[in-house]
Amino acid sequence: MTYSAFDHPYLSGLLGDEAVAAEFSTAADIHAMLSFEAALARAEAIHGVIPESAADRITEACRGFSPDVAALRRGMAVDGVVVPELVRQLRATVGGEAAAHVHFGATSQDVIDTSLMLRMKAVAELFATRLGDVVSVLEECDDQWGERTLMGRTRMQAAIPITVSDRLRTWIEPLLDHKDRLEAMERDLFAVQFGGAAGTLDKLQDKAEDVRATLAEELALADFPQWHSQRSEVADFANALSLVTGSLGKFGQDIALMAQQGDEIELAGGGGSSAMPHKQNPVAAEVLVALARFNATQLSGVHHALVHEQERSGAAWTLEWLIMPQMAGATAAALRLAAELAGNIRRLGSA
Amino acid sequence: MTYSAFDHPYLSGLLGDEAVAAEFSTAADIHAMLSFEAALARAEAIHGVIPESAADRITEACRGFSPDVAALRRGMAVDGVVVPELVRQLRATVGGEAAAHVHFGATSQDVIDTSLMLRMKAVAELFATRLGDVVSVLEECDDQWGERTLMGRTRMQAAIPITVSDRLRTWIEPLLDHKDRLEAMERDLFAVQFGGAAGTLDKLQDKAEDVRATLAEELALADFPQWHSQRSEVADFANALSLVTGSLGKFGQDIALMAQQGDEIELAGGGGSSAMPHKQNPVAAEVLVALARFNATQLSGVHHALVHEQERSGAAWTLEWLIMPQMAGATAAALRLAAELAGNIRRLGSA
Amino acid sequence: MTYSAFDHPYLSGLLGDEAVAAEFSTAADIHAMLSFEAALARAEAIHGVIPESAADRITEACRGFSPDVAALRRGMAVDGVVVPELVRQLRATVGGEAAAHVHFGATSQDVIDTSLMLRMKAVAELFATRLGDVVSVLEECDDQWGERTLMGRTRMQAAIPITVSDRLRTWIEPLLDHKDRLEAMERDLFAVQFGGAAGTLDKLQDKAEDVRATLAEELALADFPQWHSQRSEVADFANALSLVTGSLGKFGQDIALMAQQGDEIELAGGGGSSAMPHKQNPVAAEVLVALARFNATQLSGVHHALVHEQERSGAAWTLEWLIMPQMAGATAAALRLAAELAGNIRRLGSA
Amino acid sequence: MTYSAFDHPYLSGLLGDEAVAAEFSTAADIHAMLSFEAALARAEAIHGVIPESAADRITEACRGFSPDVAALRRGMAVDGVVVPELVRQLRATVGGEAAAHVHFGATSQDVIDTSLMLRMKAVAELFATRLGDVVSVLEECDDQWGERTLMGRTRMQAAIPITVSDRLRTWIEPLLDHKDRLEAMERDLFAVQFGGAAGTLDKLQDKAEDVRATLAEELALADFPQWHSQRSEVADFANALSLVTGSLGKFGQDIALMAQQGDEIELAGGGGSSAMPHKQNPVAAEVLVALARFNATQLSGVHHALVHEQERSGAAWTLEWLIMPQMAGATAAALRLAAELAGNIRRLGSA
Repeated sequence: MTYSAFDHPYLSGLLGDEAVAAEFSTAADIHAMLSFEAALARAEAIHGVIPESAADRITEACRGFSPDVAALRRGMAVDGVVVPELVRQLRATVGGEAAAHVHFGATSQDVIDTSLMLRMKAVAELFATRLGDVVSVLEECDDQWGERTLMGRTRMQAAIPITVSDRLRTWIEPLLDHKDRLEAMERDLFAVQFGGAAGTLDKLQDKAEDVRATLAEELALADFPQWHSQRSEVADFANALSLVTGSLGKFGQDIALMAQQGDEIELAGGGGSSAMPHKQNPVAAEVLVALARFNATQLSGVHHALVHEQERSGAAWTLEWLIMPQMAGATAAALRLAAELAGNIRRLGSA
Repeated sequence: MTYSAFDHPYLSGLLGDEAVAAEFSTAADIHAMLSFEAALARAEAIHGVIPESAADRITEACRGFSPDVAALRRGMAVDGVVVPELVRQLRATVGGEAAAHVHFGATSQDVIDTSLMLRMKAVAELFATRLGDVVSVLEECDDQWGERTLMGRTRMQAAIPITVSDRLRTWIEPLLDHKDRLEAMERDLFAVQFGGAAGTLDKLQDKAEDVRATLAEELALADFPQWHSQRSEVADFANALSLVTGSLGKFGQDIALMAQQGDEIELAGGGGSSAMPHKQNPVAAEVLVALARFNATQLSGVHHALVHEQERSGAAWTLEWLIMPQMAGATAAALRLAAELAGNIRRLGSA
Repeated sequence: MTYSAFDHPYLSGLLGDEAVAAEFSTAADIHAMLSFEAALARAEAIHGVIPESAADRITEACRGFSPDVAALRRGMAVDGVVVPELVRQLRATVGGEAAAHVHFGATSQDVIDTSLMLRMKAVAELFATRLGDVVSVLEECDDQWGERTLMGRTRMQAAIPITVSDRLRTWIEPLLDHKDRLEAMERDLFAVQFGGAAGTLDKLQDKAEDVRATLAEELALADFPQWHSQRSEVADFANALSLVTGSLGKFGQDIALMAQQGDEIELAGGGGSSAMPHKQNPVAAEVLVALARFNATQLSGVHHALVHEQERSGAAWTLEWLIMPQMAGATAAALRLAAELAGNIRRLGSA
Repeated sequence: MTYSAFDHPYLSGLLGDEAVAAEFSTAADIHAMLSFEAALARAEAIHGVIPESAADRITEACRGFSPDVAALRRGMAVDGVVVPELVRQLRATVGGEAAAHVHFGATSQDVIDTSLMLRMKAVAELFATRLGDVVSVLEECDDQWGERTLMGRTRMQAAIPITVSDRLRTWIEPLLDHKDRLEAMERDLFAVQFGGAAGTLDKLQDKAEDVRATLAEELALADFPQWHSQRSEVADFANALSLVTGSLGKFGQDIALMAQQGDEIELAGGGGSSAMPHKQNPVAAEVLVALARFNATQLSGVHHALVHEQERSGAAWTLEWLIMPQMAGATAAALRLAAELAGNIRRLGSA
């Protein structure tokens, strides 16, 4: 059962990506949320907010925690967020005195947003690496055929001859920029979320900032004051994803055009047709274009989510849940397909 | 493992819908594609294109067909569409002489688009019914509190008093219009797709139109010439879905505003908070707004898919696969949540 | 000074359209708003709400009215809508006893929305006619070259031969559908807006519906109850505009691809290059694609405007003002360019 | 005559901005394009590509140049870009031997993109300053009422009390981030465009990079190799604009909600109503939301323009022309309205 092509039982053969799909599994999400709870307990113990024994018990319980997913689903239906039920289950698992110290001073949004940031950071790292991989293959193409000639085409017309290198540059350079951007984001953008009920960490009083700093350190996330209603970082990351797929879309469109023109490229791979066995469709090239347009579309929704009213907006926030995983899925597919496509280039240009 | 909240193991507790999710299961899609192949065989037999015995064998094989989904996934990765592999499996199941008559004159797009239309038609019927359900509950609200007073609010300011009936009308009327629209679409919009390799049904020659007419009748779809590269019907259906969620979003926004204002509505249900046990969040109301904005966003992507070049565009077509199920999922969730929300109204307006 | 290419002093040479631009001139908007005020006065007189002499005076004053645009601009800045100031100016022009009867029972939204509907209706009529013109030129192409051969292309690859007629059909049929749709809209969709302060026409009491019916008749608009917060008709018209530009975008994309392929089309016209005098750019073809994507983008914004809270939402409504004229401008440009492009086809296909 | 509210004769009273509109005047665009031509001539003279006397003559001619706008418009219609005609007019003005040295080695896209960058850079500087202005006013609010209490509201429900300072922080911090971002962009993002016919600066041979470096310096733009088909910088700037309006939209939404709630804010200004003289509409607050959603919508179109095929795409490029000025106009209006709105706050919170 799936609405999303990215993890559809067979559409994922074209549009899926195992590594990134794993980050959006229930297991990964729950693992990340439990990482928050455990790290919170440890940070609170370090600063004397809760007993160290409670932190130890909580950390241990998180490690072995096995969620009742059906109950999480029911909780979601009632509360609109999964965390109240998750925390109930965790408290039950922790048991004893320590149970009361679970999730102290935190609110659901802290858990959910931090989980998103942990997984987006992992995905950003993965994407930065893959961008490097695509660039490597394209640079091999440059070594092999860079000096050959291509007809430069402007406004859908032959213009003047250029070199294969000239064209490859337009594919490679943006990917290197995007790699740099994602690496900078890994350092600076992905912040812990910790603000408590209405963003004031009122329960932690004068220890709030220290606890947050330690919490961030425990999770290897950046330490910023809560950003419950300030969604620029999410929107900015969505922008980065769409820049990646957009640039890969240009690469795909160029390959598809060369494949149709016929004389300046030779591709291995390609898809068959149920009706025309002679055809070799530049499927990956076309799909790169579709993924670029998909993310360009989605980006709008994430920017609408910037209008996040008051201290917490269910309307704006839910829009992020509906869209961010999709954008990551699209980017993953695009990076995979781009590497395959680049690797399938058997010839570029004319001698 | 899921990218989509609509069938996420726990997010679906809030955003899912069982009946519509079933239409997007692999089983439903394969069932619909096999319906096409069986109906095609029967139509071709009726018009003497293939032997009746072959049609019987094919129909029987489709009935008992059990797909090798892993192989479908691999086929998808190679061909960009699942149909060549599905047809290979079906031919193997059919066996004997009849195998050669499977999928005669058709192309992958015929199967995939027809499957989409079959499932969208079923979903449209379901949505029309549910719109009626939401209207019924709102009409009960009208019976109960319609004469009471509400403060009319324009431009985020109290204006002049209106009746609860006045406000309910603005929620009810669009839903009735959308119901009519979907019912008209059930009659006219959902067309069989049948064009063959490059849209000319070249293999069926002078029997092409007759076969198509019978095929359409077998599948209870409208009979139009192939629309491989003409995507207006898909875009128009996407528009209809977004009109539904948009109107339900207005309803949700109004409820949320009344819930915050506090004095003119009393709701049962509502969601708890992990940090503030006293709160009753109007979760469904907010989520209706999110779903409206989600579909408003997605609609753009489906309209970009109108730029479907030449006889078949992988780039444009893939965009539909990525988006249409999502729009249906969002609409299903919105209809479910709207009925629940309307049913949870305990009081509206002042005496 | 202009932000919009559609009426930019020189960009309009490519992207403008005189007839439709005229509908978005200040003069046209004010004329339409005054048509509302005059028709309202006449309808109210007919039903005894105001003296006939007042209606005569108001009608006369509207005819000769010369607006103080600078004052309208100042009023806009203060009130957020132009109507309070317009009505002040009109009352001053009307003078005497009749002045008090200006705009009786109406609200700003009635004037602004009715003006939009009057102008959109005119534009819809124009577009339906132009769609017919584009179809005529394409049908001439069909007469001339319809039997010639084109290479059918699927997934950016040569597939099997088709006829020029086959391809022309995919361009023509959607345009005929869109023409029918716009003509149906001219009959049914464009409704008068008349609801008064908070949509209840409270000042007209039992004469409200009669007055509205006569008002609609006077303006040749459909008679529906007020739709202040029900924006489906606007969103539906936006959808229609995007269907038009989307289908014209597919036409443009196909021509551009043929122009690049080189052997199956010969175009007159085309644009020069400042650097490569030999080039003939298929400019119009490319611009049709841009306009399609422009409208596909804008449509999303108009659908977000469906979330129109309470009795009047400045946030949602303003979004329509920002976008609807642009969509009309894009559609006008697309229809003009498509007719020119079709008329510039000197040859299609191979013998 | 205007399609855009941003420079509409009266809608601009609410949605316009004089300073930024000036950057989108024909005069500003032509001035920027001439700046390119003059700087190009000077750079080419410095590096011995053209005679110094020619550069002097060209610079002089640019200074006094008076365009024939009607002819530019006609040129636009034929060529799809205004530059061939502009260069023709400039050559005619320059006259003599120097005429041949006008626009040497450049192509239309160099001129148009550089003009866009020059004006976007000016607009970015303006916006950074205005962000500072809005922050200043909000910081004054903080000084005045920061310690007072507001009801924190989450999920459209009262949560727990917060301070006015807490809420102001959520408005102020993103604006400071966006200011930093724009200032960084002023340093790094706005690059000269110089690539010649097909991006290879073939006519300048070994002097190409030196000429470009000097050209960039002359124009105070960053020096990067040509980015004809690499549109990430444009898309990234569009993202920055939408982040600004998105954050201002959250501010507007919060004010509108407080205005409706009634007890925690007192605003001066506000708009009147034609039907309800007692109302004070928080017009600016609502419009900020509309502008946020407008830019969130437009951003998608600019990202679609990343799919910029081959060496120059008329389809993708035209989309930028249709959208970028609009996004700048929306941002300008939002910054103006935000400053006004913040300045109109007479009271926030409870004692």
